[in-house]
Amino acid sequence: MEHQINNNNDTICAISTAPGVGGIAVIRISGNNALSIIKKIWNGKDLSSVASHSAHLGHIIDANGEIIDEVVATIFIAPRTFTGEDVIEISCHGSIWIQQQILKLLIDNGCRMATGGEFTQRAFLNGRIDLSQAEAIADVIACSSRASHRIAISQMRGAFSRQLADLREQLLTFVSLMELELDFSEEEVEFADRSRLISLASHIEEIISRLADSFSIGNAIKNGIPVAIVGETNVGKSTLLNALLQEERALVSNIHGTTRDVIEDTITVGGTLFRFIDTAGIRHTDDIIENMGIERTFKKLNEASIALWVIDATSQIDEIKQMYSQIEKTLLDKTLICVINKIDTISNSKLSEITNTIATITPQKTTTVSISAKNGTAIDTLQNALIDAAHLPQNDSNEVIVTNARHYAALTKATEAIRRAIDGLNNQISGDFVSQDIRETMHYLGEITGEITPADILTSIFSHFCIGK
Amino acid sequence: MEHQINNNNDTICAISTAPGVGGIAVIRISGNNALSIIKKIWNGKDLSSVASHSAHLGHIIDANGEIIDEVVATIFIAPRTFTGEDVIEISCHGSIWIQQQILKLLIDNGCRMATGGEFTQRAFLNGRIDLSQAEAIADVIACSSRASHRIAISQMRGAFSRQLADLREQLLTFVSLMELELDFSEEEVEFADRSRLISLASHIEEIISRLADSFSIGNAIKNGIPVAIVGETNVGKSTLLNALLQEERALVSNIHGTTRDVIEDTITVGGTLFRFIDTAGIRHTDDIIENMGIERTFKKLNEASIALWVIDATSQIDEIKQMYSQIEKTLLDKTLICVINKIDTISNSKLSEITNTIATITPQKTTTVSISAKNGTAIDTLQNALIDAAHLPQNDSNEVIVTNARHYAALTKATEAIRRAIDGLNNQISGDFVSQDIRETMHYLGEITGEITPADILTSIFSHFCIGK
Repeated sequence: MEHQINNNNDTICAISTAPGVGGIAVIRISGNNALSIIKKIWNGKDLSSVASHSAHLGHIIDANGEIIDEVVATIFIAPRTFTGEDVIEISCHGSIWIQQQILKLLIDNGCRMATGGEFTQRAFLNGRIDLSQAEAIADVIACSSRASHRIAISQMRGAFSRQLADLREQLLTFVSLMELELDFSEEEVEFADRSRLISLASHIEEIISRLADSFSIGNAIKNGIPVAIVGETNVGKSTLLNALLQEERALVSNIHGTTRDVIEDTITVGGTLFRFIDTAGIRHTDDIIENMGIERTFKKLNEASIALWVIDATSQIDEIKQMYSQIEKTLLDKTLICVINKIDTISNSKLSEITNTIATITPQKTTTVSISAKNGTAIDTLQNALIDAAHLPQNDSNEVIVTNARHYAALTKATEAIRRAIDGLNNQISGDFVSQDIRETMHYLGEITGEITPADILTSIFSHFCIGK
Repeated sequence: MEHQINNNNDTICAISTAPGVGGIAVIRISGNNALSIIKKIWNGKDLSSVASHSAHLGHIIDANGEIIDEVVATIFIAPRTFTGEDVIEISCHGSIWIQQQILKLLIDNGCRMATGGEFTQRAFLNGRIDLSQAEAIADVIACSSRASHRIAISQMRGAFSRQLADLREQLLTFVSLMELELDFSEEEVEFADRSRLISLASHIEEIISRLADSFSIGNAIKNGIPVAIVGETNVGKSTLLNALLQEERALVSNIHGTTRDVIEDTITVGGTLFRFIDTAGIRHTDDIIENMGIERTFKKLNEASIALWVIDATSQIDEIKQMYSQIEKTLLDKTLICVINKIDTISNSKLSEITNTIATITPQKTTTVSISAKNGTAIDTLQNALIDAAHLPQNDSNEVIVTNARHYAALTKATEAIRRAIDGLNNQISGDFVSQDIRETMHYLGEITGEITPADILTSIFSHFCIGK
């Protein structure tokens, strides 16, 4: 594997911990000269002879021998390190001044300031991890929910890479047989049983397209599963949102039509990120601005996979029926959760009446939850309904889920190529073409792990990393 | 040394790096159970048998065995650690979610969340450092200039502590002789030569009072050396301040009397922090608000040790003389720097005339600098003049400088006590009283290093630390 994107021979340094003042901060150094550079600013035990993975107390000193800080330097000797190069981590006191001074001293003595993600880039360039694992590191750092974190950790540990390597190996066997035939084409030998080849290609196609399909759920898990909250104005949608968010982010008021704009907010429910879209109340109005809001409501509704229909428990049964007839069309293909709000204000018999009405008019698989957003009653039941509606993969499932748009694009192209190969085999097309389609499939899978990724794409990928990682 | 302020038997944990997302974050654990607690959430090499100061790659896992993160755990075995207890530093990916999950797992498994400064507090309680060194750690983390940093590092490394220990030892010898005499008082023995005792006490008094006196410069270095910028309105004071600050923080305008309020801003000049006080233009006005500003100008002027008198180079010579007569009285005891601004707008002969006038009316030691704040001309000369005027201790001086108000208060009381002892010796007062004064001197010095500091003061000191340190 050879990639030429950055000068890989110099020694880089960066602050790896979060910016700002902390108890301690960690400055990371990686490269062939890490040990010889630190020697120039180090007062303590000779670090050039210490064991790998050992920590040492000492002082960082400037050119005049003045002590900048008392630090712990941990030495990692190549190749069994994060980057595959010699790595030193300096754990210093977390003042900004000290962090800057140590960085300045390192640069003065021959280090180069690392670019974003350059440590991870070197880990990739030195073959410690593949590209999908490198990308997963950025995901691990960015993730904010259990579900997205689980996928990122799995990808970082190479579950996706192993699946891709396995597919590529199967494809390689496949293409080798095809190409062997081509070499002996004049002799009309058929090394590969066509029906077995078709069966193998179909199996591979199935796996690749399943991976590609997983992107829709993977993307939702990463960015939040979209949930549209719809309903008449003044039914307590904003209060409901707030009960879920447990903080006042949406405008709560008693005036009809208060929530004019579409408000999106993310909240982690049971370890999964949901993206709630609170929408302008759907009602007939002459207010132009409000009408624009209503238009957006329907648009947002289309993007969401789950719809929360919030019903004011004090409404008349006829009103509820009329409301449903208005929104019914837009609810197609969505998982509907009916939320009867303000149950603290009505009798049990009224609640039964509403529940029965909803059961009559909505599809059979609809879930109905009765809550009081204001009092926080049964919000947990609603949360469970949301988790169920999200149709998430099981926790213990080892299924690989794609969360990265770049991977999705490559998988889509790989799927197209393998389908062309299958068509070719079915239609007795010349082995040349089939072989080319298989090679193309391998190419796109290889793009994901970075075996054949162009330099500019690599640069673009790592430029989105934070500095110090 | 025994101090009872916090339960010292449990195992504490905290995020030690700056809050927020980073490439990596470090979670620190300290206590007897550090190793047994991490064992419950660790998947990797058995950490209970590894060498001190060694780093190990492994996984943090939750109760279900799910991987939370791939981390490096560095093990420090007591007593040769920061706190004097077993310490583990977990270097994890810097996502907030991961940081929180690991912290939660540690707490679920028996760690207690550390209070602010509790790691340092344990280092103190376990005798790894004394109180003045512990306080210096907070200073090291807070400092933002070379000068204040130098003092804090020196104090952290124990220069101040050693000086105090030396003084206490001398005082102990002193008081032992005095008290030995008291034991044999009926026999009228005099073990200690009175004149030698007076000489020793005077020597000690000199050192203690010099330390106390150093607080004024120490405090200025820590909080910024106050510099009052005075002058007529519209002479370019704000532009000057901005040229020094290199950013637009003060209001710049062409209208007379724009800078109505006192603006304080700190800027590091040549590694030293200065606190600039831009003042309302001093001129005769009927505007009440402006007059209030002028009153404050004079008040601020009194607090500053350095005054920058900014003169508009286009002013008439008479105006300059009149202005000086107005401010002359308030400049007493200050180091005056005259800044002739707007030199880009006048001839060389006019500049000479102004310079000569200033030389005539101001004290001999006055420094005069000719600049153009607008064009940035000779700002570096002005910076050098400021550094000179600050009368900072030399870089290579090993003189201890006190920066802590608590230390200053204790030193002041110690000075009073030793002076009473000297008076007693001079006036042939009974040895009982002299001995008591010496013991009191020792007591106050001991307060600084924490040998006899009450629990509530200790608690207050550490409560100002950040969590994780």
